[in-house]
Amino acid sequence: MTLPTEFDRIARHFRPLAGPDALDLQDDAAVFAPPAGREMVIAADAMVAGVHFLPDDAPDAVARKLLRTNLSDLAAMGAVPFGYLTTISVPRDTQDAWFAAFAAGLAADQAEFGLSVLGGDCTSTPGPVSLSLTILGHVAPGEAIRRNGARVDDEVWVSGSIGDGALGLLAAQGKLADPDGFLAHRYRLPQPRLGLAKAGLVHAAMDVSDGLVQDLGHLCRASGVGAEIIAADVPLSAQARAVGDLVRCLTGGDDYELLLAIAPEDAKALQAHAAALGVAVTRIGVFTPPAAGVCVIGPDGAAMALSTGGWSHF
Amino acid sequence: MTLPTEFDRIARHFRPLAGPDALDLQDDAAVFAPPAGREMVIAADAMVAGVHFLPDDAPDAVARKLLRTNLSDLAAMGAVPFGYLTTISVPRDTQDAWFAAFAAGLAADQAEFGLSVLGGDCTSTPGPVSLSLTILGHVAPGEAIRRNGARVDDEVWVSGSIGDGALGLLAAQGKLADPDGFLAHRYRLPQPRLGLAKAGLVHAAMDVSDGLVQDLGHLCRASGVGAEIIAADVPLSAQARAVGDLVRCLTGGDDYELLLAIAPEDAKALQAHAAALGVAVTRIGVFTPPAAGVCVIGPDGAAMALSTGGWSHF
Repeated sequence: MTLPTEFDRIARHFRPLAGPDALDLQDDAAVFAPPAGREMVIAADAMVAGVHFLPDDAPDAVARKLLRTNLSDLAAMGAVPFGYLTTISVPRDTQDAWFAAFAAGLAADQAEFGLSVLGGDCTSTPGPVSLSLTILGHVAPGEAIRRNGARVDDEVWVSGSIGDGALGLLAAQGKLADPDGFLAHRYRLPQPRLGLAKAGLVHAAMDVSDGLVQDLGHLCRASGVGAEIIAADVPLSAQARAVGDLVRCLTGGDDYELLLAIAPEDAKALQAHAAALGVAVTRIGVFTPPAAGVCVIGPDGAAMALSTGGWSHF
Repeated sequence: MTLPTEFDRIARHFRPLAGPDALDLQDDAAVFAPPAGREMVIAADAMVAGVHFLPDDAPDAVARKLLRTNLSDLAAMGAVPFGYLTTISVPRDTQDAWFAAFAAGLAADQAEFGLSVLGGDCTSTPGPVSLSLTILGHVAPGEAIRRNGARVDDEVWVSGSIGDGALGLLAAQGKLADPDGFLAHRYRLPQPRLGLAKAGLVHAAMDVSDGLVQDLGHLCRASGVGAEIIAADVPLSAQARAVGDLVRCLTGGDDYELLLAIAPEDAKALQAHAAALGVAVTRIGVFTPPAAGVCVIGPDGAAMALSTGGWSHF
């Protein structure tokens, strides 16, 4: 009996990615012993062609973005990666080369971030490629970084540069010049800031996936505080600066940088910690009493009126 | 600022389903302490409208099927449900009532099976409704039931009745008479056989989702054995018997019953254990040396030539 494609594909492309807990992807589920004395951290994200990535993006890049956007959630919680499961729904005529490239992307990032696949599912769809990934990590008990820990007078910091993702989408769509390809690369291959959100140093954290201002609003609501940020202090890449669309940078999605709340006296400690990881961090404002909401001080010194709070996937 | 629909929907429909580990679905991830002294069991399945369910199936039934097919994987491993994450991709114009009904289906089954949502994602798609669910359970260390434990001369047993799912799909499509609605109900609302695969009693187990003969083949390959089953002994519901399509019952998908391998001397113990759970179990054959593969003895006493090994989602 010839094995059906579904099982054949899993065996050929995904079994080599499996760690011992995955039971060679031959069972109904994976079984793992949680790391001793640790709490588990778990999150899931979906990505759909034409919504979260471009239909003609290379499958290996799509796989890496899928894994990295989830790793970014672990990074926001201060967690160490452990493993993941992924479900893959693709058109019936998808070629084997697509699966090979997708698995190669996963393999590259498994090696880079130190985790392996635990399981998943592979099926057809009459619609666009639809992906889902569940990521598992772990933290020391009580040391997961939440969104609700920011306090009035804490400082607002961000990692890396903001706005490249939103501009990179335009660049990847051919709607924006991107001479060195930097912006499109930032859109296609986010960099999860693992290790940056450190318990005892960072009071609150989240990843910036739906736009800096909107996501800061989420963090403020969870913490019961407001925030005032200085637009001119928001770190932009040279390439984003050259584009000159500040509003898009402040409100666009797909950055996957971290928003952090720290006590003012810990600024030097955060900088030293980030430098050791090779990550830039920048202070962009302060947390305020809740009545103020999120206020963005524009280049002219006045509060900016931002008509959109950011990106919604609806 | 008006909350975007994505966050509003999560807050209204899914936050009430969240347990304490889910952190009110307000963080980047959930955090949980694994049950002390237990191993964790984890699996993920995708479901796409038009492939795994009918596009006009009621959203609450779709949600329950999504959760139950994953619970069936836990059942196959002998695991106790702990929690789940789900990603939901729906067309942009999906009404709020759809989400309300979907969440109501999840709520009903959370109550029935004793678990709660840990997280997930909600996004739009230009294609059909695409769902994914990751289920978490736990077992005593070393007591997860694998597919690879069947031994030559063990008996092959199944729970419930076989073939209702495949016939039920035809019934739901209006291609088969289903006077009392039983078959369509079996297709739409599988019954995970939690608790049946008991360590120390069951040598190997898996759930029958892609067709009895194909799935038995998977179990045999994993165990390095063959199997001979008697078609006339395969338990059929009265409704399936009335249809009279034995081949479809043996090879069709969507049963979500359990295939079990036990020692012959444990037959009475299995029956007693199953009876205590209110589940019917039936002996349908024996495991044989590997050279034999899977052989199905037909009603005429000869091996049946089954042209299809079962259902593939490609």
